Amino acid sequence: MNTLKSKIRDIENFPQAGVTFRDITPLLADHALLQQAVQAMVDPFRDGNITAVAGMEARGFIFGSLAAWELGVGFIPLRKPGKLPHQVGKVDYQLEYGSATLEVHLDAINAGDKILLIDDVLATGGTARASCQLVEQLGGEIVGCSFLLEIMPLNGRKQLESYSLNSLIHY
Amino acid sequence: MNTLKSKIRDIENFPQAGVTFRDITPLLADHALLQQAVQAMVDPFRDGNITAVAGMEARGFIFGSLAAWELGVGFIPLRKPGKLPHQVGKVDYQLEYGSATLEVHLDAINAGDKILLIDDVLATGGTARASCQLVEQLGGEIVGCSFLLEIMPLNGRKQLESYSLNSLIHY
Repeated sequence: MNTLKSKIRDIENFPQAGVTFRDITPLLADHALLQQAVQAMVDPFRDGNITAVAGMEARGFIFGSLAAWELGVGFIPLRKPGKLPHQVGKVDYQLEYGSATLEVHLDAINAGDKILLIDDVLATGGTARASCQLVEQLGGEIVGCSFLLEIMPLNGRKQLESYSLNSLIHY
Repeated sequence: MNTLKSKIRDIENFPQAGVTFRDITPLLADHALLQQAVQAMVDPFRDGNITAVAGMEARGFIFGSLAAWELGVGFIPLRKPGKLPHQVGKVDYQLEYGSATLEVHLDAINAGDKILLIDDVLATGGTARASCQLVEQLGGEIVGCSFLLEIMPLNGRKQLESYSLNSLIHY
């Protein structure tokens, strides 16, 4: 995965002082490597009878929709509040400072659906765990969670220890 | 395209009274039809030597990244202000009420790049025109603009009359 890592750009002090932001836009610009990455993100789950991929707004829309395409299943967008026009289920969760909410259309997930959750970055795991809870509230099963990259010192995987977890690049 | 239209759900009075929102999430849930839609969105431009696809946050990330995948080229995200961590170019533009800004990484577009602009909906055309201007500011060429659906009475295509335009579903 060293080749993939070469397409992640470190940006110091973004979004705030002392933070190193891992910028995935160089990878998006390289079709062949992006394809490799998405395939490796879904490979462990190809035999999981996945019925849909869910991805969180906004960068999760990119990797999530590509993962769904690669698996030949539908894509379920998990969105910030007020964006989805039909009836929604929602989950509130804590961030380091303050709180956030994710919504999904109630009819996007049916009981027994087998969902793969996709995002680009696993950091503290708060958003990913809330996403899993939202899917489960609606009767879906989380078959696994897959990320392009994981910020290991933040230990987000502890938030997801009841799920099968895959990440390609570790910092 | 009637089959595609059957996967667009009309939501009355969203986001405000008197507006009919065209909800594309049922199409996202149907892999086979979504694939047909994305292929039809890019078909007119397959011979255009496209070097990258650009898509606007947030739903444009879904259709844009899939269109780039289908064409075998990279994807350039056009983002709301403050989201992109590296040096950006930006464009301000007017909305019906107020204004908005789009940003793109300066190094995402090189002089002579041939860009296909993708979004889900062409409405007033303000965002699409601003996106084209942003690409051109950085030296890129807009080979075409392609949309899943177009709200004809809003006449957004007038904003894009200097570009090659494709849209699949007309309301």
